[in-house]
Amino acid sequence: MRRIVIGVMGAGECADERDIHHAYDLGGMIAEAGWIVLTGGRNLGVMDAVSRGASEGGGMTIGILPTTDAASVSEGVEIAIFTDMGQARNNINVLSSAVVVACGMGAGTAAEVALAIKAEKPIILLGVEREAARFFSNLAAERESRVFLADNPTQVISFIKELLSSGEEEGSAA
Amino acid sequence: MRRIVIGVMGAGECADERDIHHAYDLGGMIAEAGWIVLTGGRNLGVMDAVSRGASEGGGMTIGILPTTDAASVSEGVEIAIFTDMGQARNNINVLSSAVVVACGMGAGTAAEVALAIKAEKPIILLGVEREAARFFSNLAAERESRVFLADNPTQVISFIKELLSSGEEEGSAA
Amino acid sequence: MRRIVIGVMGAGECADERDIHHAYDLGGMIAEAGWIVLTGGRNLGVMDAVSRGASEGGGMTIGILPTTDAASVSEGVEIAIFTDMGQARNNINVLSSAVVVACGMGAGTAAEVALAIKAEKPIILLGVEREAARFFSNLAAERESRVFLADNPTQVISFIKELLSSGEEEGSAA
Amino acid sequence: MRRIVIGVMGAGECADERDIHHAYDLGGMIAEAGWIVLTGGRNLGVMDAVSRGASEGGGMTIGILPTTDAASVSEGVEIAIFTDMGQARNNINVLSSAVVVACGMGAGTAAEVALAIKAEKPIILLGVEREAARFFSNLAAERESRVFLADNPTQVISFIKELLSSGEEEGSAA
Repeated sequence: MRRIVIGVMGAGECADERDIHHAYDLGGMIAEAGWIVLTGGRNLGVMDAVSRGASEGGGMTIGILPTTDAASVSEGVEIAIFTDMGQARNNINVLSSAVVVACGMGAGTAAEVALAIKAEKPIILLGVEREAARFFSNLAAERESRVFLADNPTQVISFIKELLSSGEEEGSAA
Repeated sequence: MRRIVIGVMGAGECADERDIHHAYDLGGMIAEAGWIVLTGGRNLGVMDAVSRGASEGGGMTIGILPTTDAASVSEGVEIAIFTDMGQARNNINVLSSAVVVACGMGAGTAAEVALAIKAEKPIILLGVEREAARFFSNLAAERESRVFLADNPTQVISFIKELLSSGEEEGSAA
Repeated sequence: MRRIVIGVMGAGECADERDIHHAYDLGGMIAEAGWIVLTGGRNLGVMDAVSRGASEGGGMTIGILPTTDAASVSEGVEIAIFTDMGQARNNINVLSSAVVVACGMGAGTAAEVALAIKAEKPIILLGVEREAARFFSNLAAERESRVFLADNPTQVISFIKELLSSGEEEGSAA
Repeated sequence: MRRIVIGVMGAGECADERDIHHAYDLGGMIAEAGWIVLTGGRNLGVMDAVSRGASEGGGMTIGILPTTDAASVSEGVEIAIFTDMGQARNNINVLSSAVVVACGMGAGTAAEVALAIKAEKPIILLGVEREAARFFSNLAAERESRVFLADNPTQVISFIKELLSSGEEEGSAA
């Protein structure tokens, strides 16, 4: 039976403390809900924290890696998908997620949020500054996409539950 | 902890009866061994049969889809990765597998075997005609890749166990 | 001898009149300067206008298409590259351009600007609203990337000439 | 106006003397016919020879590179497209070519010929051993694809002219 995949995007090298805490807690909560965590897979920043949080919480985790380098994979990743296609893999992350969560912001994350809007996926921005939130909300308003703003992981989980029960993610591929 | 992924490639529309039986049985045996089955994910031919075999055997299955079409996913696939990149996704299949098994032959499968040779992955050809076996064995001989020939799923499992215990798949990304 | 490629990104269906006029004029000016225009290749919006502008001005034009659909190619495109990889092709557009110009804004364009920042390419935003300009300038400030703001095509050309003569685009792949 | 693109595939490091001579001559002949040469773009083997042959003959050449490394581009390539997607770029090479020519054989080339059969492109094998020729001819026989065998570049050009005038390449994307 098809499992529900929640994509969590966020910075690698440049992630700050708060984003990393958010990510780790969010990972545990996603695992508890029985969903699968999908990330960019590297052993850095948000990707690493959310994967470890989910894995330590007994959840299944998938990492969509930009390279073929096994040494760069987060220890929290159970299934590593090696794309060897650099940032082009960002689109796979988005298309494979029922809901896309951005935990903090950065250039790669911004690309993923923009691609999620393009793909008309529901998006939750966690701990993102007001300017970024406004920019993406405006972009989404031109399409059949919705952007939700959350301040903490618990709120993210509420939004996801609401989206899944309303079937709002069904227009999406996953 | 990172799980071991076994890629099983094979025809969709053009798969014959024998390949489909092989694939279904092989899926069950891979699940029993505790490995994860990775396929092209569609609800056709070898991809479908090996995913259903593994899933019904209690195993975890991943499908790397060429489109974003949720309706085209095999019921045996637990985790669907939507690439929307057509046949370019074949390279992801190969790079993400510790061992690549080709169950029968066709144009897409031939591309995957050739890419596996290029990526220096161990390859097992199951039920492949002599001409194809010779062609790929010769191609592999020019590189650090090895091609094994199997007549049935039990033999495939023996080869995989040998490869995993010898660490021969370690040069690979997975 | 390697030719200089200028990438011009912008909306398809949602492009407004002003962006389309800008794009057409910019295409002609890029052709006159002897550079090659690279776009997303479709027969819509900014992609179409800049390709026609350049082609009618005697310049060479390349389109990096998201599909394999020959009927969707702009008449201004001389060389069509069919990726069949949807929005994942956006990264190719960025990596292949010495300078990336965004003519207007939209979800796909935003993804390309974010990827250009990630790839540390020089970026020129033409006719972009203040909020988007500020968002991307802030994102770029965290990396070795620079974002320039232009009000008209003539200014874009000045920025490109400056960038090419200073060799600032050299850190980039192209 | 859309230009006709001829893809020439072949080995990099492992190309032999004869393949390289064939490739260089073929490049010149393609340029003379007014078509555009498309290759994998690197400064090695067949890719390099056919690009230099075409470029020295006054033709336009495109290279679809697997990395972002500007130093790896053949001097014969006029327009470099940087994909950063490794062997997944092989599918782009095939889809963007009206006719696919394989000059010699190797693992990467075999993947491209198999993908060309899958995409139902006309394929010309130049100087390929009998076993490979038979393997691919059989694969193609299962699909709407045709494989032609040539012994020298002049024969390749004749096949291409015939294919273009019969419109047999029209089913293809290019």
